[in-house]
Amino acid sequence: MLIHSASQLVTLAGGPRRGADMNRLEIIADGAMLMEAGRIAAVGESAALLARYPRAERLDARGRVVMPGLVDPHTHLVWAGDRAAEFEMRLQGKSYMEIMAAGGGIAATVRATRQASRDELLAQTRQRARRMLAHGTTTVEAKTGYGLDLASELAQLEVLLALDEEGPLEIAPTFMGAHAVAPEFNGDAQAFTDHICAVMLPAVRDWWQQNAAARALPFVDVFSEKGVFDLEQTRQILLAARALGFPLKLHVDEFENIGAASLAAELGAVSADHLVKTSPRDIEALARSDTVAVSLPCTPFGLGQHEYTPAQQIIAAGGMLALATDLNPGPAWCENMQFVLALACRAMRLTPAEALCAATINAAAAVRRDGLVGSLEAGKQADALVLQSGDFRDLAYRFGVNQVQTVIKKGEVVYNAPII
Amino acid sequence: MLIHSASQLVTLAGGPRRGADMNRLEIIADGAMLMEAGRIAAVGESAALLARYPRAERLDARGRVVMPGLVDPHTHLVWAGDRAAEFEMRLQGKSYMEIMAAGGGIAATVRATRQASRDELLAQTRQRARRMLAHGTTTVEAKTGYGLDLASELAQLEVLLALDEEGPLEIAPTFMGAHAVAPEFNGDAQAFTDHICAVMLPAVRDWWQQNAAARALPFVDVFSEKGVFDLEQTRQILLAARALGFPLKLHVDEFENIGAASLAAELGAVSADHLVKTSPRDIEALARSDTVAVSLPCTPFGLGQHEYTPAQQIIAAGGMLALATDLNPGPAWCENMQFVLALACRAMRLTPAEALCAATINAAAAVRRDGLVGSLEAGKQADALVLQSGDFRDLAYRFGVNQVQTVIKKGEVVYNAPII
Ligand SMILES: [Zn+2]
Ligand SMILES: [Zn+2]
Repeated sequence: MLIHSASQLVTLAGGPRRGADMNRLEIIADGAMLMEAGRIAAVGESAALLARYPRAERLDARGRVVMPGLVDPHTHLVWAGDRAAEFEMRLQGKSYMEIMAAGGGIAATVRATRQASRDELLAQTRQRARRMLAHGTTTVEAKTGYGLDLASELAQLEVLLALDEEGPLEIAPTFMGAHAVAPEFNGDAQAFTDHICAVMLPAVRDWWQQNAAARALPFVDVFSEKGVFDLEQTRQILLAARALGFPLKLHVDEFENIGAASLAAELGAVSADHLVKTSPRDIEALARSDTVAVSLPCTPFGLGQHEYTPAQQIIAAGGMLALATDLNPGPAWCENMQFVLALACRAMRLTPAEALCAATINAAAAVRRDGLVGSLEAGKQADALVLQSGDFRDLAYRFGVNQVQTVIKKGEVVYNAPII
Repeated sequence: MLIHSASQLVTLAGGPRRGADMNRLEIIADGAMLMEAGRIAAVGESAALLARYPRAERLDARGRVVMPGLVDPHTHLVWAGDRAAEFEMRLQGKSYMEIMAAGGGIAATVRATRQASRDELLAQTRQRARRMLAHGTTTVEAKTGYGLDLASELAQLEVLLALDEEGPLEIAPTFMGAHAVAPEFNGDAQAFTDHICAVMLPAVRDWWQQNAAARALPFVDVFSEKGVFDLEQTRQILLAARALGFPLKLHVDEFENIGAASLAAELGAVSADHLVKTSPRDIEALARSDTVAVSLPCTPFGLGQHEYTPAQQIIAAGGMLALATDLNPGPAWCENMQFVLALACRAMRLTPAEALCAATINAAAAVRRDGLVGSLEAGKQADALVLQSGDFRDLAYRFGVNQVQTVIKKGEVVYNAPII
């Protein structure tokens, strides 16, 4: 299939970007793209490609933007139930940490997720996955972490693998047993840390080798925060995971700075995520590393807070910035990466181009799939969007709606917006 | 048609609400609603209505929320072109007033709107109207104000009347020639004020009587702000409009407080809108009046500002609060009232119930249609939504997507969400 007559074919060619280079989108005016067998076969100007491939099936973009499918590199996609009642509590002034201490927050979702049958969990998760796809996200990272015991965590991994198999949304799974201290450990974070290292991580690796041997190991992630897993416990878990071959991710600096961003860089984590209370020193450490800085602006937005990732400083330091929804049943139930772009431009003063780069090729780097997705280049997977608009900046300028016209995954049209 | 088995039939029965009474939604559990000839014939429990009307055509809400269609009481729906480039400028630190002074802002849209043919203007406006409808807005206020000369302003009124006629979105029009000083008046606000009073307002009334005599006169609105129309000019225009029989609306306190909110209350305006820099004294004046306080949180959000309407104080004083998108080509291109609810809860700490009241029955009061729409009560127009969720709080708790399953206007299904 040959998509042609795109006002802007936003390719993002040339790999992940650092610093000011994030503004370089590599746009082809009146662009076209040939797809064959799920891959991109050629990218160029419409006139050239139409002449070169006269017999290809055609999809006329009619002066609209064609761009890579969005990549959402940080979600907690798989859970059961909801916390709408708790949302009302937060409006009455309770803090996130207070709600957690009162048995709400993550603990409430852990109870609901453990109780859900596999089919319920799959059905609820599938709804969100489909909503993400309809909003233009073609690849998503998804974490476990609402089970906190081995069986429940593996059940979540199983749901993620089943959904990935089912498609069309492509899922990069993460094992996050260290999302909170499991209720069975009565707040003893050190005992749970030891349990994760001695029991859960090896069991997850064994399970993976039996059930998904053909796939790369999932990421391992830790909620490194004061009152949850401290810096030494975080290091202990990450070192154990790394020794078993797992690639690493890390939740850092959401509420307080305990130095975890620098630890992520030191240990070669693929990404360090949240980054709200991040210091200039941490920013330097990230910028000198290959660790992608993933900002999650829906979370402060969802909590009604005004402090966001110091994205300007990260870019100024030459860091590699990505954006994600942080989709979760607490402060950030939002499946729409387009909203993340619009929010990032307003709350963190990203340019529309920086935001788009952060949500495509840099986001792909944050899930180690930048060789496969996140840009429109010959040889890569044919994951692309046709927008309703002719100007990519509309993704950031307008907000609160779905601006995607057509979603293409592995060369197939998998979603078309209703004609309204 | 009988809609039944709604988890929550959120009726909002009993008229517009003031103060803490805004939390009273009047929800019927397992509710049902009978519609006949575009009107609501009966509202009650499913068991009772299914027994009483066994032969009615049925629509099974399947445990989802049924609620009134959303009312958006403040939009600048009718314009041509876009200002995506200016959005980038703002991210580089230019203020709204600076962009206006440099010939951008409203002036840029005035140029584009004047140049557009009637068909272009109609087509671009229709797209937004349909997008609003698909997001559950069934009645919308829409202002002129991108013409600023009589012919262009009347062309905008004509487009609004044509779209209203076309349906299904119902449009309450507003004449806002006093949106900015017309370029022909070279910044002489007093001369333009005199021109509006002496020429435009009488001409609009005459045009209306010739072209739309069967309809109530449109609202007249003024952008009362330092550097645009001062308090005395505002008073002059509103008094002239009132003398001609126009009902009044007013843009107040968006950037500076010049006392316009109290003026709106004093002159019996139907609504006073924006209300960011509103003083305790203004809040008292509004609360003692029948003027609806319309908050437009998308505008500070769109501008990346942290100061919003003092909604808590307005409610505490016993005011009547409504919410609107302020849909416009500047800071707030957002057709989705659901996002306004979610934002209002976070930025102004409304409860989900207060936000819903502000977007339905109170919003209907802000366009003087609370006798017709904004609640589900026998005798009213059958404008209703079926949500995808079983809990109305999800409209505020989740954000960035469209949670509407089915939109019903005057008893007809006019939109169904795609199955995803
Ligand atoms: Zn997270
Ligand atoms: Zn306005």
